[in-house]
Amino acid sequence: MTAPIVTLTTDFGTRDPWVGIMKGVILGIAPAARLVDLSHEIAAQSILEGALCLEAVVGFFPRGTIHLAVVDPGVGSARRALAVRAGGQYYVGPDNGLLSLAFARTSEAILAVELTRAEYRLSPLSRTFHGRDLFAPAAAHLASGVPLERLGAVVTDPVRLVLPVVQRGRDLIRGEVLGVDRFGNLVTSLTEEELGSLGSSALVVEIGDVRLGAPVSAYADASPSRLGAIVGSTGRLEIFARDGSAHATLGLGCGAPVVVRRV
Amino acid sequence: MTAPIVTLTTDFGTRDPWVGIMKGVILGIAPAARLVDLSHEIAAQSILEGALCLEAVVGFFPRGTIHLAVVDPGVGSARRALAVRAGGQYYVGPDNGLLSLAFARTSEAILAVELTRAEYRLSPLSRTFHGRDLFAPAAAHLASGVPLERLGAVVTDPVRLVLPVVQRGRDLIRGEVLGVDRFGNLVTSLTEEELGSLGSSALVVEIGDVRLGAPVSAYADASPSRLGAIVGSTGRLEIFARDGSAHATLGLGCGAPVVVRRV
Amino acid sequence: MTAPIVTLTTDFGTRDPWVGIMKGVILGIAPAARLVDLSHEIAAQSILEGALCLEAVVGFFPRGTIHLAVVDPGVGSARRALAVRAGGQYYVGPDNGLLSLAFARTSEAILAVELTRAEYRLSPLSRTFHGRDLFAPAAAHLASGVPLERLGAVVTDPVRLVLPVVQRGRDLIRGEVLGVDRFGNLVTSLTEEELGSLGSSALVVEIGDVRLGAPVSAYADASPSRLGAIVGSTGRLEIFARDGSAHATLGLGCGAPVVVRRV
Repeated sequence: MTAPIVTLTTDFGTRDPWVGIMKGVILGIAPAARLVDLSHEIAAQSILEGALCLEAVVGFFPRGTIHLAVVDPGVGSARRALAVRAGGQYYVGPDNGLLSLAFARTSEAILAVELTRAEYRLSPLSRTFHGRDLFAPAAAHLASGVPLERLGAVVTDPVRLVLPVVQRGRDLIRGEVLGVDRFGNLVTSLTEEELGSLGSSALVVEIGDVRLGAPVSAYADASPSRLGAIVGSTGRLEIFARDGSAHATLGLGCGAPVVVRRV
Repeated sequence: MTAPIVTLTTDFGTRDPWVGIMKGVILGIAPAARLVDLSHEIAAQSILEGALCLEAVVGFFPRGTIHLAVVDPGVGSARRALAVRAGGQYYVGPDNGLLSLAFARTSEAILAVELTRAEYRLSPLSRTFHGRDLFAPAAAHLASGVPLERLGAVVTDPVRLVLPVVQRGRDLIRGEVLGVDRFGNLVTSLTEEELGSLGSSALVVEIGDVRLGAPVSAYADASPSRLGAIVGSTGRLEIFARDGSAHATLGLGCGAPVVVRRV
Repeated sequence: MTAPIVTLTTDFGTRDPWVGIMKGVILGIAPAARLVDLSHEIAAQSILEGALCLEAVVGFFPRGTIHLAVVDPGVGSARRALAVRAGGQYYVGPDNGLLSLAFARTSEAILAVELTRAEYRLSPLSRTFHGRDLFAPAAAHLASGVPLERLGAVVTDPVRLVLPVVQRGRDLIRGEVLGVDRFGNLVTSLTEEELGSLGSSALVVEIGDVRLGAPVSAYADASPSRLGAIVGSTGRLEIFARDGSAHATLGLGCGAPVVVRRV
């Protein structure tokens, strides 16, 4: 059997010792685990950014992968701690919506438990670093073969993140920018399926008061230095600038309104 | 037997090829080694920052782990190169104090040797990149089962880093800020044990000329946008700003005086 | 047999999900592969910077290593996709010169194939993310034992990067700055061999209109705060500032002229 994969997604950065500490805890409990960093550069306390990162990645990992994620502004408060099985993979993290876009991708039944069992935690449990004391140990125990059901009592109402609602008119859909990637591309709330609902007519994309023309199918199809729209590799409509940053060119970021219109 | 873990801590950053080169050298000598990055974002040539990172992390790794660390302003000079066994783990790096806070954590006897044996180095030995030529090979040979004693002659006086001395008055202790983390938290020289020496009275924390009240036990216990003090997850007193940066709010960083006072 | 090593070099950064997605794809196809990040901080679309990073690293990895590299401004255009065997190692990436400095290091015959076989790709093949759909699967199939020749038809004319030509006079050689590393060191096009062609006379190095004296053999040999020249650990002449940044001190970067002169 191949050793289990544990991915890590946090807003801890890579400068400070926090991620290293979690890895030490995991390898102490599950020596054979294989660790894969997804991102530790999630914007501090941005649950949405972390959730979008997980949503984009998990479909590419094999069944049995354990995804550990910690973006946890509520650490030390009453928010619950979760482990979830969904679509053949596992998710461990705070119950604040961080995991919810990823596990919502599956059409299978999900099973969520609250991490309440003291034997699967470090002791004493701090109120400042549940990544170390609670989430890393739970992920490691799953990796070493402990069944999910043993980690705590079933939870039927995990917090689910609500994305900005896409508005539909007769000849248009309206969404907004959810995030900005390293290249300055603006990732929107509009998905490929939602674009499909406009049928096969010619489309134009508008962001702010700029009109972009129809979505292209490759960055290379846009003119140099021109803005364009494309369904990006995560399945969401993106606004990009060929050889530049759409974020900088437009001066627009999260929350900016986006419209796709039949012409 | 599980494959040996080799952790890496440097000030090399992750953009340039230096860390990749060290990993190639290690895997060439010890193909089964499992590599774990702790941090490569230690401030350039900051031995103290590297030493604090290692100190914070090593207690969470299993026995037998090999910690390779390179923050090495004296490379090419006469400073010695070390491998150390302490508390069941191994440390490899320059003899400039970088490893010393980590190996000082153990109450067991430590054994240090100077890396002098040519057969455990790359040849020729450069005077610019001992991480590649000297430290990575030594760590890899340890990982592949070479006994520490074979790597060189015993050293009885490894350089030990001296932290700013905590001053004790009748009703107070005085320390200073040692570092600033990614969230802008100010990490101080005052430890949980030293706070305990003030007894169970009510305490106030002062930094610069700002008075903060008693240490709290969770970030979430501070009011939004307020400054607070807390014993952080590394066991040191930290100054934090709820939902912000204490570093930016106070305009204070390394060396800033901190007092904890009985009231 | 030890599990195959797959290294990753990209300009994707470590914040967004792109690298994690490629790792998921690789581990889905080749569960035993061991992943080693070289750099994901290559400047966006800088083929030269990526090529220099690979060139510096690959000689330190064991035979059989698979180097996956994606700096791919032409994704979605007609540029070819390659897998190459050279010097006992494998290279996978776009045919834009990115791999060429690395595979040019070997004196052995190289074998290059174009990645044209649909069964070794994800389907559908996007026009925006060949790192995921084309290059990661090819690297993973190599890691799982598929022979290179099965991945596609032989290519005899892979694109080779042309570095700025070193000019030779009777008593001097002239090159230029190719890159700037994290410490502000200026890495030049002049190699140790080219310096050797000037014989054993005393040399001076000039950058812009600043004269630096002869190359030293260790950073520690330069006076504090002084500029110096050294053959760095990649075998190229570098300009450095002791305890500082030559890039900042000189205000010079890529393309700045460098002369080494006999005196």
